[in-house]
Amino acid sequence: MSQRVVIIGAVALGPKAACRFKRLEPDSEVIMIDENAIISYGGCGIPYYVSGDVSDAKALQSTTFHMVRDEAFFREAKGIDVRTRSRALSIDPRARQVLIHDLESNHEYLLSYDKLVLSTGSRPRILPLPGVDLPGVYAISGMEEAIRLKEQISRGGVEKAVVVGAGLIGLEMAEALTDLWGIETCIVEIASQVLPGFISPDMARMVHNVLEDNGITLYTSEQVEKISGSARVQKVITDKRELDADLVVLAAGVVPNSRLALEAGLEVSPQGAVVVDRQMRTSDEHIFAGGDCVQIENLVTGKPGYYPMGSMANRQGRVIGTNLAGGEDEFPGAVGSFVVKIFDHAAAGTGLSPESARRQGFEVFSAYVAQFDKSHFYPEKDLLYLELVVEQNTGRILGLQGLSTGGDSLKGRIDAVAAILASKPTTMDLSNLEVCYSPPFGSAMDALNNLGHVAENILKGRNRGIGPGEFAKLWQDRDKRDVAFMDCRGEDNAGPLVEKYPEKWKNVQTETLDKNLHLVPGAETIVLVCNNGGRSYEAQLKLAGKGITNTLNAHGGMALLKKWGVDI
Amino acid sequence: MSQRVVIIGAVALGPKAACRFKRLEPDSEVIMIDENAIISYGGCGIPYYVSGDVSDAKALQSTTFHMVRDEAFFREAKGIDVRTRSRALSIDPRARQVLIHDLESNHEYLLSYDKLVLSTGSRPRILPLPGVDLPGVYAISGMEEAIRLKEQISRGGVEKAVVVGAGLIGLEMAEALTDLWGIETCIVEIASQVLPGFISPDMARMVHNVLEDNGITLYTSEQVEKISGSARVQKVITDKRELDADLVVLAAGVVPNSRLALEAGLEVSPQGAVVVDRQMRTSDEHIFAGGDCVQIENLVTGKPGYYPMGSMANRQGRVIGTNLAGGEDEFPGAVGSFVVKIFDHAAAGTGLSPESARRQGFEVFSAYVAQFDKSHFYPEKDLLYLELVVEQNTGRILGLQGLSTGGDSLKGRIDAVAAILASKPTTMDLSNLEVCYSPPFGSAMDALNNLGHVAENILKGRNRGIGPGEFAKLWQDRDKRDVAFMDCRGEDNAGPLVEKYPEKWKNVQTETLDKNLHLVPGAETIVLVCNNGGRSYEAQLKLAGKGITNTLNAHGGMALLKKWGVDI
Repeated sequence: MSQRVVIIGAVALGPKAACRFKRLEPDSEVIMIDENAIISYGGCGIPYYVSGDVSDAKALQSTTFHMVRDEAFFREAKGIDVRTRSRALSIDPRARQVLIHDLESNHEYLLSYDKLVLSTGSRPRILPLPGVDLPGVYAISGMEEAIRLKEQISRGGVEKAVVVGAGLIGLEMAEALTDLWGIETCIVEIASQVLPGFISPDMARMVHNVLEDNGITLYTSEQVEKISGSARVQKVITDKRELDADLVVLAAGVVPNSRLALEAGLEVSPQGAVVVDRQMRTSDEHIFAGGDCVQIENLVTGKPGYYPMGSMANRQGRVIGTNLAGGEDEFPGAVGSFVVKIFDHAAAGTGLSPESARRQGFEVFSAYVAQFDKSHFYPEKDLLYLELVVEQNTGRILGLQGLSTGGDSLKGRIDAVAAILASKPTTMDLSNLEVCYSPPFGSAMDALNNLGHVAENILKGRNRGIGPGEFAKLWQDRDKRDVAFMDCRGEDNAGPLVEKYPEKWKNVQTETLDKNLHLVPGAETIVLVCNNGGRSYEAQLKLAGKGITNTLNAHGGMALLKKWGVDI
Repeated sequence: MSQRVVIIGAVALGPKAACRFKRLEPDSEVIMIDENAIISYGGCGIPYYVSGDVSDAKALQSTTFHMVRDEAFFREAKGIDVRTRSRALSIDPRARQVLIHDLESNHEYLLSYDKLVLSTGSRPRILPLPGVDLPGVYAISGMEEAIRLKEQISRGGVEKAVVVGAGLIGLEMAEALTDLWGIETCIVEIASQVLPGFISPDMARMVHNVLEDNGITLYTSEQVEKISGSARVQKVITDKRELDADLVVLAAGVVPNSRLALEAGLEVSPQGAVVVDRQMRTSDEHIFAGGDCVQIENLVTGKPGYYPMGSMANRQGRVIGTNLAGGEDEFPGAVGSFVVKIFDHAAAGTGLSPESARRQGFEVFSAYVAQFDKSHFYPEKDLLYLELVVEQNTGRILGLQGLSTGGDSLKGRIDAVAAILASKPTTMDLSNLEVCYSPPFGSAMDALNNLGHVAENILKGRNRGIGPGEFAKLWQDRDKRDVAFMDCRGEDNAGPLVEKYPEKWKNVQTETLDKNLHLVPGAETIVLVCNNGGRSYEAQLKLAGKGITNTLNAHGGMALLKKWGVDI
């Protein structure tokens, strides 16, 4: 049974679905159309192309064996008829036809199909601002715009850049401009933090510090009102200031390209994403869709989610390819994992952030761990700063986010939790999670296990504490409040702080606490501090045993507070 | 309800259980005894102490905040009565008493308990060989012996060493001796491969190559018969040769210390491991046991397994600590994950190796992937060599093992699969596994996803192939058999091999195969080769479409064959 499959969109999902299908049904016909000239490229690599880490744009379009995936490649190597510079104008689901506009010949024609695949992707959200059309303003809608952007930088004359939006792409683009090109770059973000929706305000603060340490200026809670310039962009005007700019990158998120689907009468969500079932079928049984244009199930909440990620598109593309050939593969959904390089650091996460969990109606708390990725006695190691999002009462784990200079180590921890997140794990599952161990690669009690322990102790009411943001607030207000800070470490660590803040900072070491109960400060609130929150937790238990319960444990300890940037 | 808990063994599980219990029940009494003087150390760190990576033995015994965990520490900081140099002679479960021998005072006394914890650990398997007692022969039964070993090396005069056993500890010790001390080291292993039971013969061959590249000589399938010397060790005599040795390390595995349990009438397995339930209780409800002296459930097979690992002991110790205090925590079992540093490489795995799966009655096949841990266009990256163990017919994933210079990346992949292994995942689960992605940390289609794809294609009969060992055999016998090798890559890669082996090595590139069918060799068996097994799979499908089905795909391609060391 030979069939004709038409695929609209030839960047990530389209080519994957096309190739998989052709391998399974070599005698069937596949026509893939795309309105652009450059196709089948790794869009996620664009920031690394801009930065110069990847020198040639062709590298993003090449196979692992260095063949460029252009029209000729698909035709000759894959037997797929790719038509670039061809725009799909409309779909007639009843007649099973697509109306195509050939942009080169300016000619329109109808293409009939047995099955259709929508891989129309997404487009950058363009803010309705005066000046967005000025030369020098880019939204990185695709490879061609990225090439123009890099050409502009390469010609020189770009000294200052403004990135609008501090999401994943915004941060990657800001690093690309700063790191290798040395462009003075700032980011303007309307939300009160970087990576809004991905990480908590506390984690965001740490990422913020890393960005600033690397020369990027951040303006959060700030709105761009206008982009100005005469022949080209010269300024970005926000509600708070004017910023000089030779270059502006708009990275305010993406929106699904679902106009075709909507006009064809397919089910589209109120947010504009194409609705598909687990087999990636739209509401029309002959039409599949996937990638940046669809919504899929969030496997943590059970509700629809939107995950415009190249990896999703690739995996879904394979499922579609199989199902085009009569298969019944399923793509159940996503838990929402991400990782982003931020200079020498990585930030990564999976599942829900505390704020997104609350928005979904969960009552949650955070557990923090600051721990080395290797055994503490092993010479080479990096600190992992992790925040676990846990549901109150049930102890169900809803998400995990982190920051580290050990990017691969961090990613590994996130991926292990992502793998089980859909099965509703609890703190006990994390406490016992079996990660492979030897001292050059981990601790006998891994940071993930310790996260489970901390979370369980919080859940059981034994470990009562505060995150770094709350600590910073207490610290700032220390003279206005009846609060004391009790350093549970040894004199070598605590001494300098006791000397600096004799009124507020006291040293009662956990290990000798029983003998030194008379030294415990008599304030209304006692904040317990150590290096990572473990010794201070132990002090909290010891004090509770003596009836002293007005204590708060500084979760994650000085390691986390320093990374956060508390001014101690 | 205050109780007295006695803990026998104070290395890993004992201290963990003791401290957790004391935090939960501070008013209860804990007495922990150990026959050695040095306690509470990270035994897994011994090879790194011997190598010099960790300079001071005290580091292995220290907390993250650099306090040495000795008797005084446990007494003062934790309220735990630790008695070192004290040997438990026997247990009377009815009277709830332990008979203790104080090795210092040579005095015996009875210690009564409400609850008892056996953390008696394991001891090295001592081969019944003439000469094992000679000075210079070590079995690394604990920290004290490790210190003596390092002292001997530090004094100088150790030029040649023999390690008996190529398991995890054998390899770590061999590296420790070679890498920093420059000792000429060889390993004698009775099995036919390194890491027997952990990885397949093919993976073992790759590890073997890494060891040899780093100056270690390996003698597999070889049995030590005698150790000889006058005042100290001078030679190791095997069934095949005599090896000079100034130092011998016996690393032939460990056996559980279960004599006490057995004599007390507790249930002990035929293999000598203490039997416990999921709450880590022995057959006596007042006695818990964990760590190297117990067996737990293998969560892949459902049968008992033995996992003498520090990480297991730590996690189980916490469960026991909780349950001593009336909790009902569970430790369900293990899937058997490991990671070992081998110079600049890491080998790691989880679940069953192909051979151990077959021994357990599974019918299995292997799927191989050789793929970068990062996007192929990203500059810094390491190759992951992965072998997935899959059950025939069902497609159930039973294990995953790998080798890479990107140790953290490899560990992350292994851990993600380990996390789901107990839930009986299939190839589809792996194909869709959500790992976090951006080009500096992974590929849009991760190596794990591709492993799922390859395994599914093998399962469905589409990808018919051979592993590197089978390839090597065919290659070696190429002149005796009607076999041809078809290189599916471009002329730049295939050309030199075609020139070198004009009779046997042919080049028909996958991408232009349809036009060049007449070039396909006419042998009885055609072995298809490319860089990583992907293009050759595609060639196999194209040929099958033309009725040519006498093909075998070289799984993992040249990347895997080179790592294996096929002589092409």
